[in-house]
Amino acid sequence: MTQWDDIMTTHQDSFQVSTPHRGTYEITDKIEQIIHQSGIRMGVCQVFTHHTSASLILCENADPSVRSDLESFLHRLVPDSDPIYDHIQEGADDMPAHIRSILTNMDLSFPVTQGRSGLGTWQGVYLYEHRTQPHRRRVTVTIIGD
Amino acid sequence: MTQWDDIMTTHQDSFQVSTPHRGTYEITDKIEQIIHQSGIRMGVCQVFTHHTSASLILCENADPSVRSDLESFLHRLVPDSDPIYDHIQEGADDMPAHIRSILTNMDLSFPVTQGRSGLGTWQGVYLYEHRTQPHRRRVTVTIIGD
Amino acid sequence: MTQWDDIMTTHQDSFQVSTPHRGTYEITDKIEQIIHQSGIRMGVCQVFTHHTSASLILCENADPSVRSDLESFLHRLVPDSDPIYDHIQEGADDMPAHIRSILTNMDLSFPVTQGRSGLGTWQGVYLYEHRTQPHRRRVTVTIIGD
Repeated sequence: MTQWDDIMTTHQDSFQVSTPHRGTYEITDKIEQIIHQSGIRMGVCQVFTHHTSASLILCENADPSVRSDLESFLHRLVPDSDPIYDHIQEGADDMPAHIRSILTNMDLSFPVTQGRSGLGTWQGVYLYEHRTQPHRRRVTVTIIGD
Repeated sequence: MTQWDDIMTTHQDSFQVSTPHRGTYEITDKIEQIIHQSGIRMGVCQVFTHHTSASLILCENADPSVRSDLESFLHRLVPDSDPIYDHIQEGADDMPAHIRSILTNMDLSFPVTQGRSGLGTWQGVYLYEHRTQPHRRRVTVTIIGD
Repeated sequence: MTQWDDIMTTHQDSFQVSTPHRGTYEITDKIEQIIHQSGIRMGVCQVFTHHTSASLILCENADPSVRSDLESFLHRLVPDSDPIYDHIQEGADDMPAHIRSILTNMDLSFPVTQGRSGLGTWQGVYLYEHRTQPHRRRVTVTIIGD
């Protein structure tokens, strides 16, 4: 247990991720770098993506088959071209992308401890592109603490 | 990248949402108004609903069919009157409402930037009522920053 | 609506949860105790578990059948030993545990109000163990406010 009455700070930075196709793109190092630049030792790191067809997940970072199995699962759970969809003008993968984003979330928060992310050893942060075509996705990181 | 060593502030406010039936109710403007009142320029906005059968989602705010397709999907994924449920005393829609709330979450956070919500152009914040009967749902917004 | 320009503080503490088997373990009281120790009256409480096969949920805390029905639902939605998985070296419950954690999330935030958690009357915080064998799970609570 630690508590500081030192000066509190807010630090905010944004970056873009190019996504050539549907899948997961690791952004852990980029976030760690922003935490380092903030100078904040203890607090909360809030990560956000400003879209409705891409999301942010924490996922096992050792075996890539975890992320391909996750994709197989989501592809079965939220099928492209599902006949229940009315919103089909933007492509067969658009409505599934909205649903997949809502199920896996566009926001993510975790502790900052001793000037670093408090992520577990096997936790990586990934931007999840749910559209099949290439996109550029914006991510904002806000760190609050002291 | 911006960083202020200005005075940090916490601002908190609550409001109620009347939900005549199952479905999504936009609360983006109400939250934007609370951010404005806070005077906070840069930070994090945390939104919370104090219930276990309603949730908060970020969803595409242009075409209403996105939200009706989402409802069709969730209705199929988490059927009312599913024979696997033991918790049926409060109605056929009660246990599905708990599960739908857990899958879509009761909490939501996003950045505050330049005194406004940092939501994407097409992102709206919606309270999702998962019960079929009318309810009143309480939402609390907490903004921290400077 | 309340706003303080008092001194802002960050308070952070961690604890372990022993999980004999798959299922939900309530941690509301432990979190409430950390909020009390922080001395923070108004702000945000961020709860995090540092793993990829356990998660944190808000769930109805009155009738235990809600949590057993939730488990029945997730067990059907994300079956153990599903033939679509390639990641099977760590056991038939490992890949399902990763997916269940991503669907239900490893992070959770809620308001702190009047020196207590702002949880609703029927909301409890639960660590959800998704592996079938016993584990020890680490949880970190960070409270920011004034």
